[in-house]
Amino acid sequence: MTDGPVIDGRRLLARLDAFAAIGATPAGGVNRPALGDKDRAARALLAELGAARGFSVFQDAAANLFLRRAGADDLRPPVLIGSHLDSQPTGGRFDGALGTLAALEVLETLEDRGIVTAGPIELVAWTNEEGSRFSPGAFGSQVYAAGAFPAGWQDTVGSDGARLADELAATLAALPAASERLLGGPFAGYIELHIEQGPLLEREGALIGVVEGIQGTRWLEVVIEGQVAHAGTTPLADRRDAMAVAAALITQLQATVMPADADARLTVGRLTLTPGAVNVIPGEVAFSIDLRHPSNAEIDRLEAEIVRLAAEIATRGGCRASVRRSMDIAPARFDERLIGIVEQAAKRRGLSNRRLFSGAFHDALFMARLGPAAMIFVPCRGGLSHNEAEHVEPHQVTAGAQTLCDAALEAVAALATA
Amino acid sequence: MTDGPVIDGRRLLARLDAFAAIGATPAGGVNRPALGDKDRAARALLAELGAARGFSVFQDAAANLFLRRAGADDLRPPVLIGSHLDSQPTGGRFDGALGTLAALEVLETLEDRGIVTAGPIELVAWTNEEGSRFSPGAFGSQVYAAGAFPAGWQDTVGSDGARLADELAATLAALPAASERLLGGPFAGYIELHIEQGPLLEREGALIGVVEGIQGTRWLEVVIEGQVAHAGTTPLADRRDAMAVAAALITQLQATVMPADADARLTVGRLTLTPGAVNVIPGEVAFSIDLRHPSNAEIDRLEAEIVRLAAEIATRGGCRASVRRSMDIAPARFDERLIGIVEQAAKRRGLSNRRLFSGAFHDALFMARLGPAAMIFVPCRGGLSHNEAEHVEPHQVTAGAQTLCDAALEAVAALATA
Repeated sequence: MTDGPVIDGRRLLARLDAFAAIGATPAGGVNRPALGDKDRAARALLAELGAARGFSVFQDAAANLFLRRAGADDLRPPVLIGSHLDSQPTGGRFDGALGTLAALEVLETLEDRGIVTAGPIELVAWTNEEGSRFSPGAFGSQVYAAGAFPAGWQDTVGSDGARLADELAATLAALPAASERLLGGPFAGYIELHIEQGPLLEREGALIGVVEGIQGTRWLEVVIEGQVAHAGTTPLADRRDAMAVAAALITQLQATVMPADADARLTVGRLTLTPGAVNVIPGEVAFSIDLRHPSNAEIDRLEAEIVRLAAEIATRGGCRASVRRSMDIAPARFDERLIGIVEQAAKRRGLSNRRLFSGAFHDALFMARLGPAAMIFVPCRGGLSHNEAEHVEPHQVTAGAQTLCDAALEAVAALATA
Repeated sequence: MTDGPVIDGRRLLARLDAFAAIGATPAGGVNRPALGDKDRAARALLAELGAARGFSVFQDAAANLFLRRAGADDLRPPVLIGSHLDSQPTGGRFDGALGTLAALEVLETLEDRGIVTAGPIELVAWTNEEGSRFSPGAFGSQVYAAGAFPAGWQDTVGSDGARLADELAATLAALPAASERLLGGPFAGYIELHIEQGPLLEREGALIGVVEGIQGTRWLEVVIEGQVAHAGTTPLADRRDAMAVAAALITQLQATVMPADADARLTVGRLTLTPGAVNVIPGEVAFSIDLRHPSNAEIDRLEAEIVRLAAEIATRGGCRASVRRSMDIAPARFDERLIGIVEQAAKRRGLSNRRLFSGAFHDALFMARLGPAAMIFVPCRGGLSHNEAEHVEPHQVTAGAQTLCDAALEAVAALATA
């Protein structure tokens, strides 16, 4: 048991309701595209709530929004806690908002109790984590981690035709109360609370997921080239059927990769065939492979195995195969000290917990490249997210926020001595 | 050896050149859509060539075009020989035209020699065999065989937006020299010369394919329903991956159906998955199966096996499967006497030959439902058709036309005594 401050669960749940009303959908979800009107309204409300408690409000050139609660030694690098406020077009009310508003609850709880921390703690709300309006996602944290904007970012056009550069400028201008801040900068540690977006915690009845890292993701584009031919007149020996080869390759991969390794994920989510007529043997099939694993070496090994198998199965079927990477994000391993701090925080409150890897991207992936980072997961019903039916029970919300509070306090003390 | 008349190969090749010029494409192919200007020009040329030799010219309400050479007893039902003049948009110069112009060569050869046949022989050029402008194909022969137009045919709109009814009326009006004839009517036999559109004859070095029948074709639409889920966060045990199930089913079918039975053909030519994002496990996959076999009972058995396997593999993968027929054309068995007549005709000229089944549809399929029918195949280079590179060697053209001539003469004598 711990004697740390207890967060106000009721206040946090009310805040979640208030933010869920901004861009609320009839089906109970949220539609709050990054840098749009609703996102600006959510940012304005967050800044207003922070300012009302005396926290300093900043935004950087990527429109990442910070609420700072000063520490005893205010020159120390801050402990950052937060997540994001933007949502998928038919998103849920907890994805991003939970971590951001729980961070506000942490700052307010400390303020309520008059607790003086050794160094500053800052809430951060990252810009455009979802990437559904402007691709790619995790824009704000990537720019923060890189200390610079990616080349050509001004030309990015959104799914609604809006220019990223215009919407970013308008979003910054919409919050004149926030002070400007340089991109990036040192931090003592970063802790993000988020819903799991998977079924593990719920299935095991665990309240807290102690996240050890984020899987690496590699996207491969496989093209099988065969020969267009007549479905009726072409006997088996003359068929160079790209679809038969693609199916055999996918079947072989599904039968081996995931059954052999519980940490591996392999998904074929997109497939097109040419010419695509019922009575014509396909001459070309192109499909995507989404490959994930906590170990980059294992992703390399799996890719090599896919390349080998594709060539072998294609040759057997009279076809040719090519495999090309279309995206590659290395896995992130979180900081062992911070992982331990999160785990101890859950244990001290007697909250059931388990360690796990995140299968989804988060802003923490990019922060982990820059400094100590960790994440806390709470269960979501049925593992469902990116869905208006996304749901987290009130006691799970408070358990997550309490763990974040305890871990942030421990981090600000422990990492300060580092 | 035979003492029958020898056809004029040079004249036939020149005719093939003349008709290939109507709708010629830069790549050496033919674009002569059914009932369009080019098709009308080809019909007009054929009618003019026939009239010049004294043959009667008729067309029925489906614009099937007939050239009639009278017999000694002109009240006997005719032996019909012919094929079609329309082409695929990027079609070859032999598909259809070969059988039609070889039939003209037969009539002219008989006329040149003053040969009197026991009954009449008629050339027929069927309307819209290809079906690429107006679907379905084999329109003229189906209407002839049924003796009536299908319900709702007037509403058929072509790939270019034209109405079938308008184009049919305009085509009929464009050939005022042709006498009107009632739909259908008795015939003693039907023999169609066509390119094989497959590789068997070329591979075995056979000049003449003695066609025993046309495979039945059944189209199935398979739908696998799974569950949309996150590619990264969903472990194997929770996946209800419709694409993994579809691939396993296709692989199982490819590994069993054709290897077990050289007469079977199974093709997956169309596949769509939903939602179709790289990082989302597909919740639904729909794909087509084109299933062909000379035996309808075997097609029934294979369909039942597909339904059983789909359910079994879907259940194993946590999905549901449904299988629905979208088209069903029963196989045709040609007339044993006519098959024998074609085979003997090839043998008497010393032309290498083999029996085979047609994997493609032909007008003969529908004629076989009405009376004695048979087909003669000649090789085409690489088995290629529906392609501007379609090619038949001159000696193969003459071998086919000679066999048609001999078989037609034998048929008009033999079937008359029936």
